[in-house]
Amino acid sequence: MRKLRLYIAQSLDGFIATKTGSVDWLSDPENPDIDLNAYGYLDFCNTIDTTIMGYNTYREILNFGIPFPYPDKKNYIFSRNHTKNDPNPVEFIAENPVNFTANLKKQAGKDIWLIGGGEINKLLLNAGLIDEIILSIKPIFLGEGIKLFADTIQSTLFKINTVNIFDKSIIQFEMIEKKQ
Amino acid sequence: MRKLRLYIAQSLDGFIATKTGSVDWLSDPENPDIDLNAYGYLDFCNTIDTTIMGYNTYREILNFGIPFPYPDKKNYIFSRNHTKNDPNPVEFIAENPVNFTANLKKQAGKDIWLIGGGEINKLLLNAGLIDEIILSIKPIFLGEGIKLFADTIQSTLFKINTVNIFDKSIIQFEMIEKKQ
Repeated sequence: MRKLRLYIAQSLDGFIATKTGSVDWLSDPENPDIDLNAYGYLDFCNTIDTTIMGYNTYREILNFGIPFPYPDKKNYIFSRNHTKNDPNPVEFIAENPVNFTANLKKQAGKDIWLIGGGEINKLLLNAGLIDEIILSIKPIFLGEGIKLFADTIQSTLFKINTVNIFDKSIIQFEMIEKKQ
Repeated sequence: MRKLRLYIAQSLDGFIATKTGSVDWLSDPENPDIDLNAYGYLDFCNTIDTTIMGYNTYREILNFGIPFPYPDKKNYIFSRNHTKNDPNPVEFIAENPVNFTANLKKQAGKDIWLIGGGEINKLLLNAGLIDEIILSIKPIFLGEGIKLFADTIQSTLFKINTVNIFDKSIIQFEMIEKKQ
């Protein structure tokens, strides 16, 4: 079965964005041209053919002011309110995200990238659907913001597979869920 | 000047204890005899001669049901309510923790271990008094609990110095504060 993989960055205190959804704190003013390949991003992209995300996350991506970044993937946006046509290669899903994702995992294909955000991450974690987390941590404490997993989650333990350190400024590790 | 070092463990979502203060989730049922030396604890202890902590953290240590673990150190407990004699080698400090710690750092001696918890960590972080954080992260998401830094903190960036991975189950890294 294809895997559902959460590939995401967070602050040291567990926030994926500020309260208003901004991820500006992720960019490094001293090093503006991030070498995506060095961070394993392009390798990761080659292992997936589908992305899923919540509507707020989609809106944040649009706010980046760049062309939609995953034109070669099948992209599903969970939303009960936005089902109209969209200029980007995305499909809006009004169905329950847990059921939809469980069915998606049963279909043939490469792995599925769970892009976020906190609400959809929580739903899919609590449903036991997240197989792997590739978490990049920036050593910054934001104090408040949008949590990687919104609200209450079940206490969930992961096993660390690999760890990479990039430029002494980002720690990235790959974890698989370890049933307690 | 002697350094103030926060040596502490947290969950991946930034909690140092459950809501009720428990750190039971830190112990590994499959590996109950933690080799403290392998985790760098004894080496760290040799670099400090003083500990400081809040009263709730002190109470949690007493709840472990073991003898007070730092008999050879000078131990200060911040509390305005508990100033009576105590059977353990501790001294209660009613003074403002920021002023007290700033003065303590100016005195001669080895480094100072900031044991916690979240409230005192926040106060000293916001006052710019924490020089170094040695953070062990267990790959577990607790969802809720006592945060490493309570309430609102200033967004603070650290530079990662060294990273160690223990048994694929604990990531420990040493960071120094990087003024933004």
